[in-house]
Amino acid sequence: MTTSIPFSQAGYQRVRLEDAVLVNWMKLSAFCADVFVRLGVPPEEARIAADVLVQSDLRGVDSHGVAHMNLKSFYVGSLLSSSVNPRPKPKVEHETPSTALFNGDGGLGLVVGHHAMNEAIRRARTAGTGWVAVHNTHHYGMAAYFAMMALEHGMIGLSMTNAGPQMVPTFGAKAMLGTNPIAVAIPAGDEPAFVLDMATTVTAGGKFEIASRLGLPIPTDWGADANGYPTTDPKVANAARFYYPLGGTREGSSHKGYGLGVWVDVLTGVLSGAGASWLLPRGFNGHFFGAMRVDGFCSVAQFQSRMDDMLRALKKTPPAPGHDRVYVAGEMEHEMKQERMANGIPLHKAVMQQLLDISKELGVPCDIEQRRSETRSP
Amino acid sequence: MTTSIPFSQAGYQRVRLEDAVLVNWMKLSAFCADVFVRLGVPPEEARIAADVLVQSDLRGVDSHGVAHMNLKSFYVGSLLSSSVNPRPKPKVEHETPSTALFNGDGGLGLVVGHHAMNEAIRRARTAGTGWVAVHNTHHYGMAAYFAMMALEHGMIGLSMTNAGPQMVPTFGAKAMLGTNPIAVAIPAGDEPAFVLDMATTVTAGGKFEIASRLGLPIPTDWGADANGYPTTDPKVANAARFYYPLGGTREGSSHKGYGLGVWVDVLTGVLSGAGASWLLPRGFNGHFFGAMRVDGFCSVAQFQSRMDDMLRALKKTPPAPGHDRVYVAGEMEHEMKQERMANGIPLHKAVMQQLLDISKELGVPCDIEQRRSETRSP
Repeated sequence: MTTSIPFSQAGYQRVRLEDAVLVNWMKLSAFCADVFVRLGVPPEEARIAADVLVQSDLRGVDSHGVAHMNLKSFYVGSLLSSSVNPRPKPKVEHETPSTALFNGDGGLGLVVGHHAMNEAIRRARTAGTGWVAVHNTHHYGMAAYFAMMALEHGMIGLSMTNAGPQMVPTFGAKAMLGTNPIAVAIPAGDEPAFVLDMATTVTAGGKFEIASRLGLPIPTDWGADANGYPTTDPKVANAARFYYPLGGTREGSSHKGYGLGVWVDVLTGVLSGAGASWLLPRGFNGHFFGAMRVDGFCSVAQFQSRMDDMLRALKKTPPAPGHDRVYVAGEMEHEMKQERMANGIPLHKAVMQQLLDISKELGVPCDIEQRRSETRSP
Repeated sequence: MTTSIPFSQAGYQRVRLEDAVLVNWMKLSAFCADVFVRLGVPPEEARIAADVLVQSDLRGVDSHGVAHMNLKSFYVGSLLSSSVNPRPKPKVEHETPSTALFNGDGGLGLVVGHHAMNEAIRRARTAGTGWVAVHNTHHYGMAAYFAMMALEHGMIGLSMTNAGPQMVPTFGAKAMLGTNPIAVAIPAGDEPAFVLDMATTVTAGGKFEIASRLGLPIPTDWGADANGYPTTDPKVANAARFYYPLGGTREGSSHKGYGLGVWVDVLTGVLSGAGASWLLPRGFNGHFFGAMRVDGFCSVAQFQSRMDDMLRALKKTPPAPGHDRVYVAGEMEHEMKQERMANGIPLHKAVMQQLLDISKELGVPCDIEQRRSETRSP
C-alpha cells in the first residue's frame, strides 16, 4: 500500500520555510503566557500552559502547539466563551498511597495535566509509583509533555488522554473511541530520553490534512468513509473523522490498536468517571498519568547505563535496504528542539496570523519574530 | 494487501476436528501436573504450571498451551536437561511499597510468574497498586493468564514479557526485540472481563506457520527475509524470524509497534536486569507484572457498571459492510472456554503424540480423552 506522501523519518510535520515566519521560542512563550493572563489565568499557571504549547512546537509536534491558540476554539476560544475555568482549584477526591482520583475543576487541560502529573510524581516519591486519573478537564496538548515531567525525578512517566470519537473499532462502521494516545518517557544516562507519544489509531488528523493539501491518495487502511467503507480520499476520511486503529485492517492486526484504545479509555474515562470517548460532554476529556521510580527496582546508575546500552544498540541496528539508519522514539524530536531553540521555530503564516488576531483582539503585544542576532549554531 | 489466509474473527488458531483428539480439560490438567511432579516440581506448583497451560488451551490460544509440553524443549525438555530449577525459592531483592524486583531463582516462568503476580496483588492491597519486575526466569506461557489473576481481586492486571529477538525495528534489517507481548485484564460487572493479549509485532510465529501449511503468501508488511527485504513467503520470514512491528511499515506507523516493543523491553528486561531481548541468555526471559485496585480511583460498583456500559456499547457498534458485528478483546476466548470446558479441547494429533511420548518416557499415565458421557451443553 504505497502512496507518495512525503514522510519525514521522525513523522513530524515540517513547515515549508517559504510558508513560515521564524519566531523566538522564549518570546513566543512569553506572548502565550500574557494572553492567558489577559484571559484570567493566574501568572504561574499561564506560564505552565504556554510552556506545554511551546515545548510541543520546539519538538516539531506542530499539530499540538501554538497552532491551537485560536480566538474561536481550543484554549483561547474556550476561555473567551467561559466554557473553561481560568482559575481552577483541582482536588484529590479519592486516594490510596499510590493512586488518586483528581477533579480538574474544569480548568485548561494544559494546567490541570501539569498539577495531576505532579501529584503522581509526589506519590511515587513515597509509594514507589503514583497513578492519577483525572476528570472535569479539557484538551491537554501534547501527551509527551506530562510523561517527560517524570524524567528529571529519575522516574518513568506515563500520560494518556481520551477524546471525542474518531477511532472505528475493527469490523465497525462508526467512530467510538478517541485517537487515545499513549505517551511514555524513560530516562537514560548520556543518551536523550526515550519518549514515545503515539495515537492508537494508524495516524491522526495531521497526516490526512497533509495528504489533502497535496492532493494525494491515502492507503486504504488509514480510514473509512461515512458508510464504513475504506477510502483512499483523505478529505472523505477526515470529514467523517473515521480513523482505523493501529494495524489498519484485521489482517494487519487492527484489533490490537483497537484494544489499546479501549485500555486508554478505561484508564482515562472509566476509572476517572469522565466518561468513555463517545460519552464525553463536548470539549471535555479524561486523562491518566503515571510515575514510576526506577530505583523502586534497581539503582538509578544501573538503569541509566543499561538504557544507554539499549538505545545505542537499537540505533546501530543494521539498516534495511534503502534506509540510512534506525531511530529510537524521541530522538528526532530532541534534535529538533536543539535546532529550533537555536534558530527559531518556523511558524506557519496562518498560525502567525491567528496569533496576530489574538494580539489585536485582546490588546496583548506580539513581538515574537526571531532576530538574526538571536540565532546561534545548535 | 489481501491474502486468502482464513482468519477467525477472534484470531485464535482453530484445529480442524479431523486432525484432533478431544480431551477433557481436568484430566489434561491432572496429567500435566503429574508430569511436573515427576520432574521434581512440588505438587502445588505443578498444579499451577498445569493450570497456566490448560487455561491457554481452554481459551483457544493453542499456540501457548500444552503444545509446549515437549521432551526436547520448553517446559519438559528444560526440566529434563536441568536448565530450569524445579524447586525455585523466588525472592524480593529490592522494594518500595508499590514495587518489587523479583528473582525467579531460575524456575519455570509458569510458576515464577504466578508468584510474582501474587506479589503485585499483595502490594496493591495496601499501596493501591503493585508492580513487579522479574529476572532469572523462563518462558511463562500465555501472558493473559497472569493479568487475569487480578480480576478476582477487583483489580486491573498487567503482564508483559520479553523474549529472544524476533522484531525488526522500523528501517532495520535485523531482529532486536522479542515479540514482547502486552496483556491487560480489566474486570467488568455482568459482562465478561476485557482481556487484551497482544504481541507488539503485527503477528507472531503461529500465523506464519498457518500460511506455510496452506501454501499461501503473506502480506508484505508482516516480515522480512534474512537480508531485511519484505517478503511474501511465510517460510522465509519464519526461517529468519524477522517479524515487523505492529503497523507493518512506516506508512502504517510501525514506529508505534516498535516503540511499544521497546517499552515492554524496558519494563521486563532493563528494570529487572534480565537483559534486553537481544542480550537474554538463551532460554531466559524478563517479566513485568502490575495490579491496580479499581477502588483506588472509584467504587467497585461504579467501575463495574461503567465497564458493562462500555463493553455493551462497543459490541453494538454498527458493523462495517461485510461484517456481522464488533467484538471486544477477550470475548471470544471467554466463549471458547465455556465451549471447551463442556465439550473437550480439540488437541492436534501431533500434540497428543507429544503427550503420549512424555507419558511413555516418564511413566506417567495419560488417560485424558473426553468421554461422551462427560460432554454437556455449554
